[in-house]
This record gives sequence, structure tokens and C-alpha cells, in this order.
Amino acid sequence: MKITDLRCAVIGKHPIVRIVTDEGLHGLGEVEYTKPYLKPWVLHFREALIGEDPTDVERVMLKIRQRGSFKPYGAAVSAIEHALWDIAGKAAGVPAYKLLGGKVRDKVRVYNGSIRRKRTGDRPQDYAADVKWMMEQPQNFFMIKQGISFHSNMKDTIDGFHYGVTQNKAGYHGAMDQGVISERGFNHMLDCVIAMKEVLGDKVSLALDCGPGWMLPDAIKFARAVEKYNLMWLEDMLTGDYVPWVNPQAYRELTTSTSTPIHTGEQIYLRHNFKELIETQAVRVIGP
Amino acid sequence: MKITDLRCAVIGKHPIVRIVTDEGLHGLGEVEYTKPYLKPWVLHFREALIGEDPTDVERVMLKIRQRGSFKPYGAAVSAIEHALWDIAGKAAGVPAYKLLGGKVRDKVRVYNGSIRRKRTGDRPQDYAADVKWMMEQPQNFFMIKQGISFHSNMKDTIDGFHYGVTQNKAGYHGAMDQGVISERGFNHMLDCVIAMKEVLGDKVSLALDCGPGWMLPDAIKFARAVEKYNLMWLEDMLTGDYVPWVNPQAYRELTTSTSTPIHTGEQIYLRHNFKELIETQAVRVIGP
Repeated sequence: MKITDLRCAVIGKHPIVRIVTDEGLHGLGEVEYTKPYLKPWVLHFREALIGEDPTDVERVMLKIRQRGSFKPYGAAVSAIEHALWDIAGKAAGVPAYKLLGGKVRDKVRVYNGSIRRKRTGDRPQDYAADVKWMMEQPQNFFMIKQGISFHSNMKDTIDGFHYGVTQNKAGYHGAMDQGVISERGFNHMLDCVIAMKEVLGDKVSLALDCGPGWMLPDAIKFARAVEKYNLMWLEDMLTGDYVPWVNPQAYRELTTSTSTPIHTGEQIYLRHNFKELIETQAVRVIGP
Repeated sequence: MKITDLRCAVIGKHPIVRIVTDEGLHGLGEVEYTKPYLKPWVLHFREALIGEDPTDVERVMLKIRQRGSFKPYGAAVSAIEHALWDIAGKAAGVPAYKLLGGKVRDKVRVYNGSIRRKRTGDRPQDYAADVKWMMEQPQNFFMIKQGISFHSNMKDTIDGFHYGVTQNKAGYHGAMDQGVISERGFNHMLDCVIAMKEVLGDKVSLALDCGPGWMLPDAIKFARAVEKYNLMWLEDMLTGDYVPWVNPQAYRELTTSTSTPIHTGEQIYLRHNFKELIETQAVRVIGP
């Protein structure tokens, strides 16, 4: 079997990758929504794929895997890998997971990271109402992840939230809001956590998506302040998301300063770049 | 002054960036040749720049710097910064270097890394003739950098050079030839070094661009074998060039095993990603 074409269509804002073969089979891959601009990135790899056998997934990937990088550049390469596995599964007449070691469990826990309605505001009562609505959703989530700080509008809507420069948005992740968080901003976040925990109790767990952009002292202070609330994790406080570096040494200092689990990883491409983060236990939770 | 447009033309294979302002000034930036495909990457940042004051270089860069990454993705962002500095210098009526701390020295040594003619082959006598021609060039280079191993054709033209899989080329850096180098391949490289040093003596120094793609044991063995030839450096043996990770721990092991200076860096974007390489002295020479 040979690859005859690589196509990419933007549906909604998702770039959808389609790999076409000379035997009528095709494979589909999908990039996360909010990245319509990745279409030319995906198509850049077309010439490298034509003529290859898509069922030799690793052989094909060796031609292009090196050209991914920190988020978002790895996404274009990874979506192509998804489409290759899709073809390999179809060609073998089995679900793709059978080619990846087979099934280990029959169900997985999922937390709410994306079912949202517009929040009424960024005050503690708004956050409380928001998680109340979420915990009443039919999926019966065991955990809710909520954005605060630089990963939320409160950095703009809460007066004097931080001392950094507010970036004019360019329509895509590119600028990072960052800086020292004021005492008022700090207390505001804490009030939001308390308000959410009053609603959630110990029935539904809470995790916070926090940045990136915190200064290390603020991160340490906040992680300690919320210890009694048993959060599942604090995500991307220092680096993460679209940041093209990891700084695992700083994460290690944060992690060892607190019992609150610290989390990062979604900006990282390839296991090579997770190496130090894992080996030094710089974070407690990896979110690839 | 405000930015009114960002343009990009591919001249030869160089993407040339032009930032236009409402005061008639414009700034130029240039991406290395061989990267014509970066034009859409450059233009991706257009909307973030329109309306900004180009003479506030750092403020503008804070909007887009985060969107670079390992080579080649940093190049699009850096070329824009070049063009901003060009405008800032013109607006101030001084050369851009005056805004960057001013001149330190009046001349710099330059080595030959790019003045080339097609080599007659990949045998030791071909390498010897090649450096003889180079040392006779009018620039009077104090040092010549030569490609060997995975950074040359010898990996394909010397029968049995290595035990890795030879990648079909896709017209751009994307696949990395790599693997264990055979005893024959090892001796061939050593013969090439000896032949070049016989020509160069101690009049013109020699550095080798080597990969990436070596296994660590081969790299250690080779670095030790050439110690007596006083090479200026061995570049990119393990990672480097278009590799989206650094692996400084492995470089540290290589560096401490030999007196031959070890070099990497051109794949790295931002000082944050040089941090561990420098602080642990994982290499002796940094080539940003």
C-alpha cells in the first residue's frame, strides 16, 4: 500500500488531516480546535509522505517526527501520525489500539476540562455558580478543572490583579501575561477557591489551570495557601501551554515546597523533552 | 511611529522580511537560505504587529517571541526582530549595534563555514584537496569547518559506513540519519582527518560538523581518537541542527570524556533552552 495524497481541511477551527492511499483506504487525524492556522504546517509534510507505506507507521514517522517542536508545532506532526495509525488499523482489520499494545482497561475517568458555559463573571460567587452548574451536568464528573489567574479573564477584569504588563491580544497564543501577583489578586484567587470548594465539598474534586506566567515566589505561596483544600493539581504555573521552554529546575523547587500536586506538560513534544521533568520529579503530575 | 504592514518575499531561497511603518521607514530581516518554506510562518505574525511602535522592540517582541521554538521555528520570529532593530536604528539615526550596547571590537575572526566548491568525492584525498583549495582562498581563513559523517555524503557514498537505516530525503531537513558507525566508517573518518591535517598543518585550524545522529559510545571513541590533531571542535554529534531536543546530560558525558572541544547550539531557541547546557558545562563551545 502506498500513500498517494495528504490533505487538510479546516472544519470549524479543527485542521482535519486525511491521508489517502492507492488501495482505497484513508486515514483521519485531527488537531485541537483553535489551531486553524496549522493547515499549511500539515501540508508542508506532504512530499515526504507520498509513496510511503502508511502501515509502516514508525518508518514514515522517522521522516517527519524531527520537524515537530514545542506546542503548537508538534500538533501538525502528531495529527499525521494519528492518520497513519488509522490506516494501519483499517488495513489490519482491527481498531488502532490493538496495534498499540491492546486494551488495558474498559473505562477511564474523565474530568471536565471543556464543557463550559459563559461564566457570569470572575468573582468568587461567579466561580461558585459555575462549578455548581458543572457538577450538575449529566456526565457526573469526578473532577472539574477551572482556569484562574493568567489562565482566565480575572487578570484583566480584577482591578490591580497583578503588576505585569497586560498584553494586547493578537488573536492567538503568542504573548504571555506574566508578572508579580498583587496581594489583592492573591486574595481574590484564594476567595474563588474557597467559594468553589464550598460548593464541591469532597464530592467533586477541583484542579486549577493557572498560567503560565507566575513568578516562583507567588507560585510557592499560593500552592501552600491552598494545601488544606486538597486540590488535584495546579497546572502550568511557571511555564507550559505555548511556552517554548520548560524550566524543570524551577518546577522542582516549586514541587518540593508544597504538598499540593504541581502539573505541566502540554507544551512538550516528544519523550526526550519530558526526560528531566520526570527523572528529577520536577512535577507530580504530567499532562502530555 | 506605527507598523502598517509586514511583508515577506523569498529571494533566492531566503525569506526576506520587510516591516513597513506610517513614517516611511522600513526595516529588513533575513532568514537563512534553504528555508523558503518559512514565508507563511513569518506572515502568521502580521496581525500581532500592525499598529505597534517598531522602535519599542522588546514590547513588540513580547507579543510574538513565545511563538518561536527549536530550529526552524525560531527563525521566523528572529527575522522579525532583526527588521525591528533595523527600524529602531534608522529612527534613532544610528547603526542598530549602537542600540545593542555599541561596538566592542573593530574586527572579528571568521572561519570558513560556507565558501565551497563541489568536492571531488568523499575519500581522504578528496577531503585533502578540498581544504587545500579552501586555504588558498583570498579570505585567508584561520579555520575551516568541514562536514563529515552524518553531516556529509560519506554516510551514503562510503559502503558500509554505518548500521543505521538510510532515510530517503524529503527535500528538507526532517529525517535524521543515525546509528552505530562501523569500524570501516570510523577508520574512514579518521583517514579524512589525517589527510586534511597533513595539508593544513598548524597554519589553518580544522573543525568538524558531524551530525547529529551519533551514538554516544562512537562519539566518545572518535573524540578521543582525534585528540592529537587539536581540532577546534566537533559539532552536533548527538543532537543539534534540526533536532527538537538537546539532551545536555549526554553531551556532558561526551565532553568530560575527552580533551577535544564539543560544540552544539544552532537548533536552540532562546537563552532559556541554553541554560542547562551552559550551567553544567555540557559542551565547551556554544554555537547559537
